[in-house]
Amino acid sequence: MNILIIGGAGLVGQKLARLLAKRGTLRGKPITRLTLADVVTPAEIDAPFEVAYQKADITDPVSAAEAIAPDTDVIYLLAAVVSAHAEEDFDFGYKVNLHGHLNVLERARALGTQPVVVFTSSIAVYGGEVPQPFTDDSFLNPQISYGTQKAIGELLLNDYSRRGFIDGRGFRLPTISVRPGKPNRAASGFMSSIFREPLQGQAANCPVDMDFHHFYLSPRKCVENLVKGAEIPREDLGLNHCMTMPGQVWTIRQMIDAMTAVAGPEPAKLITWEPQPEIAGILKGWRNDIRPQKAARLGLEPDTSFEDNIRYFLEDDLPA
Amino acid sequence: MNILIIGGAGLVGQKLARLLAKRGTLRGKPITRLTLADVVTPAEIDAPFEVAYQKADITDPVSAAEAIAPDTDVIYLLAAVVSAHAEEDFDFGYKVNLHGHLNVLERARALGTQPVVVFTSSIAVYGGEVPQPFTDDSFLNPQISYGTQKAIGELLLNDYSRRGFIDGRGFRLPTISVRPGKPNRAASGFMSSIFREPLQGQAANCPVDMDFHHFYLSPRKCVENLVKGAEIPREDLGLNHCMTMPGQVWTIRQMIDAMTAVAGPEPAKLITWEPQPEIAGILKGWRNDIRPQKAARLGLEPDTSFEDNIRYFLEDDLPA
Repeated sequence: MNILIIGGAGLVGQKLARLLAKRGTLRGKPITRLTLADVVTPAEIDAPFEVAYQKADITDPVSAAEAIAPDTDVIYLLAAVVSAHAEEDFDFGYKVNLHGHLNVLERARALGTQPVVVFTSSIAVYGGEVPQPFTDDSFLNPQISYGTQKAIGELLLNDYSRRGFIDGRGFRLPTISVRPGKPNRAASGFMSSIFREPLQGQAANCPVDMDFHHFYLSPRKCVENLVKGAEIPREDLGLNHCMTMPGQVWTIRQMIDAMTAVAGPEPAKLITWEPQPEIAGILKGWRNDIRPQKAARLGLEPDTSFEDNIRYFLEDDLPA
Repeated sequence: MNILIIGGAGLVGQKLARLLAKRGTLRGKPITRLTLADVVTPAEIDAPFEVAYQKADITDPVSAAEAIAPDTDVIYLLAAVVSAHAEEDFDFGYKVNLHGHLNVLERARALGTQPVVVFTSSIAVYGGEVPQPFTDDSFLNPQISYGTQKAIGELLLNDYSRRGFIDGRGFRLPTISVRPGKPNRAASGFMSSIFREPLQGQAANCPVDMDFHHFYLSPRKCVENLVKGAEIPREDLGLNHCMTMPGQVWTIRQMIDAMTAVAGPEPAKLITWEPQPEIAGILKGWRNDIRPQKAARLGLEPDTSFEDNIRYFLEDDLPA
């Protein structure tokens, strides 16, 4: 198995690489090589197989083609311009999330080997006046450009798969929390920072109230699901290769209570509560009553409690 | 009102132009100029206002920009590579139906005037394992590249509208029957030719059986709906500017009976019944239990009988 992770410097890419290193196999075969590609050189990981680190820019077809070696078996396409950033810079969002996506699919097609392409879509594809709950059969009416680009990415993935150019599978990620590292430009950033920063003794702002509820998944479960996602037999995917990855709905109150249960009362005191109108506008269009039936049937899993998410963060991401 | 029809040489473009010429107004204002643009020079029409005829290729951004004059108020984007053709030539389908569409949207955006863009999508966006009936809230899981490209076109139209770059509205056309003129490369071609040719004393082949049923609209109602579609107040469109245009489900038997009722028993005898496997594969994925609630609420209309469709063809399209 020769695996490529595009977006290999990102949170999900790095955690996925470390999980693959720990497993050593994918789709029942030993991993022989893993390439982490990104616009910045990815951090190194320890692995029992060869790991390559590559600077690549998928908006350039030549760079995309260089990143995707002819013997690549599985491509994880995780790279994206995230929500608030794509909303702020319309052209750059389309450049990466639409044209970059197309460059990757075209190169994968050119290989002629039907490589597996695992694409991370997003629950930002949901929105508009479509009635909740959202099932696998609900209309996608995204209300941000990022969601639009992800919905287009799904359509392309399905068409390239149907044509036999690739073996694609797409997973709409719930909001990932607790994300380690620095804040990114996602509108959902605070949904991690209000735990991550206080757990390290720093203040963080929550721009919504205690009853705000949303659909979450821990990074650990996310990468476990991405491994399973690559392993789903093609014939089990049916005529739509894209689906929502399981998650759980929590209120901010439940999440803070979970942090307090795991780490005591001090962290919660470091949260400030200033509204941020520019984020409120984006969040207003988000949806949370989501029923990921197909993914659940195919064996993908949500977290069982937000206390788990807090523990995973402490175990996986904080220096001991 | 300065109106542009991209795809102005096509069946729908020509009929729409003649309807606009007859009306003389759109959106409550007199039409001052109409431009018919297409890859071939469009046929001339009689009109009480200035009409321009332009060769334009939307796959070339410069040509697309030349076609769309700065003072254009309403752009009808009807041009497309149709179903069987887009299935046969994957790259050309994407070139026109995705990249050409983007070129038009980008030029419309560059005008800075939020022009009305009326886009013809297709019921080919429906398919897959999504349960019937299809409502405005059903997932789009097209099973041909043409449908994929139309679904992407809808997402882009909505995002460009939401951003305030255009005032877009998209209508998924039922299968248009009876189409005049020569057969095109749509898989649905026989759904017109088995009436058009026999009504003119020529044979035509029907590759499906009498009970095949599908979702139809006459060309006359289609262009009436496209005029209404441009006139729907923006605020009535809600958060999804795309919807299915009303149509009616008929079986081949009902349609032939309608032809016989209007034109006597002779035409039906000219129909031959040879199966065509390459068309059967495309038709298999099509859906017909479609409920276009939103468009109906906004005043768009289906035909009342297929006899009407036959009469419209005789009145509008056959030389007297």
